Amino acid sequence: MPHLPDHLLTGYRNFMSGRYLAESGRYRSLAREGQSPETMIIACCDSRAAPEAIFDAGPGELFVLRNVGNLVPPYAPDDQFHSTSAALEFGVQSLKVKNIVVMGHGRCGGIRAALDSTAAPLSPGDFIGKWMSLIAPAAETVSSSTFMTATERQTALERISIRYSIANLRTFPCVSILEGKGRLSLHGAWFDISTGELWVMNKDTGDFERPEMT
Amino acid sequence: MPHLPDHLLTGYRNFMSGRYLAESGRYRSLAREGQSPETMIIACCDSRAAPEAIFDAGPGELFVLRNVGNLVPPYAPDDQFHSTSAALEFGVQSLKVKNIVVMGHGRCGGIRAALDSTAAPLSPGDFIGKWMSLIAPAAETVSSSTFMTATERQTALERISIRYSIANLRTFPCVSILEGKGRLSLHGAWFDISTGELWVMNKDTGDFERPEMT
Amino acid sequence: MPHLPDHLLTGYRNFMSGRYLAESGRYRSLAREGQSPETMIIACCDSRAAPEAIFDAGPGELFVLRNVGNLVPPYAPDDQFHSTSAALEFGVQSLKVKNIVVMGHGRCGGIRAALDSTAAPLSPGDFIGKWMSLIAPAAETVSSSTFMTATERQTALERISIRYSIANLRTFPCVSILEGKGRLSLHGAWFDISTGELWVMNKDTGDFERPEMT
Amino acid sequence: MPHLPDHLLTGYRNFMSGRYLAESGRYRSLAREGQSPETMIIACCDSRAAPEAIFDAGPGELFVLRNVGNLVPPYAPDDQFHSTSAALEFGVQSLKVKNIVVMGHGRCGGIRAALDSTAAPLSPGDFIGKWMSLIAPAAETVSSSTFMTATERQTALERISIRYSIANLRTFPCVSILEGKGRLSLHGAWFDISTGELWVMNKDTGDFERPEMT
Repeated sequence: MPHLPDHLLTGYRNFMSGRYLAESGRYRSLAREGQSPETMIIACCDSRAAPEAIFDAGPGELFVLRNVGNLVPPYAPDDQFHSTSAALEFGVQSLKVKNIVVMGHGRCGGIRAALDSTAAPLSPGDFIGKWMSLIAPAAETVSSSTFMTATERQTALERISIRYSIANLRTFPCVSILEGKGRLSLHGAWFDISTGELWVMNKDTGDFERPEMT
Repeated sequence: MPHLPDHLLTGYRNFMSGRYLAESGRYRSLAREGQSPETMIIACCDSRAAPEAIFDAGPGELFVLRNVGNLVPPYAPDDQFHSTSAALEFGVQSLKVKNIVVMGHGRCGGIRAALDSTAAPLSPGDFIGKWMSLIAPAAETVSSSTFMTATERQTALERISIRYSIANLRTFPCVSILEGKGRLSLHGAWFDISTGELWVMNKDTGDFERPEMT
Repeated sequence: MPHLPDHLLTGYRNFMSGRYLAESGRYRSLAREGQSPETMIIACCDSRAAPEAIFDAGPGELFVLRNVGNLVPPYAPDDQFHSTSAALEFGVQSLKVKNIVVMGHGRCGGIRAALDSTAAPLSPGDFIGKWMSLIAPAAETVSSSTFMTATERQTALERISIRYSIANLRTFPCVSILEGKGRLSLHGAWFDISTGELWVMNKDTGDFERPEMT
Repeated sequence: MPHLPDHLLTGYRNFMSGRYLAESGRYRSLAREGQSPETMIIACCDSRAAPEAIFDAGPGELFVLRNVGNLVPPYAPDDQFHSTSAALEFGVQSLKVKNIVVMGHGRCGGIRAALDSTAAPLSPGDFIGKWMSLIAPAAETVSSSTFMTATERQTALERISIRYSIANLRTFPCVSILEGKGRLSLHGAWFDISTGELWVMNKDTGDFERPEMT
């Protein structure tokens, strides 16, 4: 018997009678002609920070990679399975996106785990521990900033992780070459779940600032 | 100067004056109390198959991992960075989701790449090639099914990859234990971009069928 | 010959024909009956962050101490001249203010000096160096947070200095006793010169948050 | 929960919809380019004598030190924390102000305390008593001038304290050197809260006179 959780079936019915009905032409055309999104988003799995919601994006607009903490590991052309690098390669080389946005968010559980070095692993495999160890050097520095509040340390590491991922994006030859040619732009953004505020990274300084909304 | 592509800024403005305005109480409460989604979705990065759209999901409902081809590698507790396993561990052990849905979709570029063994790598690192090699044995079998049309082979491998990922989910001790106790359910679904149809996996047979929509 | 810089004389004429003319009754009454401000503000000397402007305050409303970096040293009942402690004592014991607000601000030159341990003293007396050394332990910690941008380090120390001053306020017996009796409230605020945003300290966590403006 | 007294929040809203809205370009530019005020004011904390009001000064115009009685202690390059000297050093050496104005005012509570040698300390620390003891010799002389009325003694000491602070300013090498070179001017002023009159010190005689208001 085919089965899905009820809340998904209910939601799917709403989709069919709502968005799909309104945009069926667009879906059909996207199926026929393939996707050609201008922008790739690298975001977190968090249920409160869906990129399509925050950017009010319709079908075909955003190529979206989501992992815990919106991290991009450094370029490592070895024989391992690199899901993040694979998505990046697909977005840049096959879809030829013009923009990559690394979007972090407040109250990120992955970042919180990275800051809490005393926490027990979530399972014997400790996959979160290993994954977040990508930013361990920064996490240690921030953890020792005892004059900052827990929230300030968390926000600081969330923003550091975005800059870290952007720096790692540039270790991929295809990214750095296309960026050098002006055909690819890298951006950082940070979403405040509570207030809905979006802070955008200043490319010159790395700081996060509110965009002018006029 | 902080900068985002124009289409994202426009979308963000719509979000603020639309969904955020309408649901600010929910966002604030989710920020204060943390997320507690019932369901984790493992989906593809494809811009045409956003889970939140297909399931009409609001903030806080879906914990979403997205990679190319919605693949789950087998359990491998080594010293590598496993983004997919990390997200799985976080969803199951920390958020204690009740359902995991692996959702594939038609016309998937990753699956197409897996079927095309003659294609050149997208970059010297060949990250897509390595990533999709997770389903190489099935891809070879399907490729040699010369009596099937190209679309039939593609759909077949898309559905095989969903069953493959669900089987790999069960190689994670935390998943198999919780499923055995009845506290976690695994589901498969396949979305047809063109028609909007959602096909749901029958757990007994592995077949994909249309759910009853009453 | 009495002399003042021209811009002050011009400004004073505007005051007489503007605010004083409009509020002469209030000024006369405040002269006759004495001041009874409800709130004391401890703010920085910075020319861009005048408390009366930011809080649109009229005559008699705010008792205002201003020093570099809006710092309150710890209670030290010795035989030195303590200008900050004297103002505090006057505000709390004589004027019986109900609130004390420590207000910092962005781009503070004193905080910048505290973060730059390599800068030469401004003069042989090095008064700024000694004054800002009140927050030296925090400044050293923040300075070593090399993963943060210069602006992030600056903002972090600006906010730390506010919490530091509030903690020192509580080392004054008169403050802690009155606060304990519910007759005096301590507050922190941080003003963003560029955007005009005011961030208010959460008393429970020490974090700075935007106040609800409804 | 972030919290500020209601009257401050109300005032801040007025600021945002009033002055900030009207001068946001100036605030942004002052944030970007830094402050460069021409004039430093050393004034009293009194809620009825805000320098920005009296001189109708906008953002960026006045670097303002405020302590009880607008006192400048003599130069003392020791290892103590000198908030007044630190502000002076910052204004003169870093901001390179062209003018310093010591502004006293009528009905000053600090001056009244200095005249009343029989008053009990405001707190065991007696910070006001020690701070105002900077002008104790003058206060004793004035107190014994029994032929003057109480108000006359008060006004006399208010003006003496302004001359005293200006004399102490000249004990700071950086001040006296720059004044000698004609790059820094020292001024005295006294504000009458009741009438709004501003009296300006004649540099030759030390007398306070009404400025020509043409």
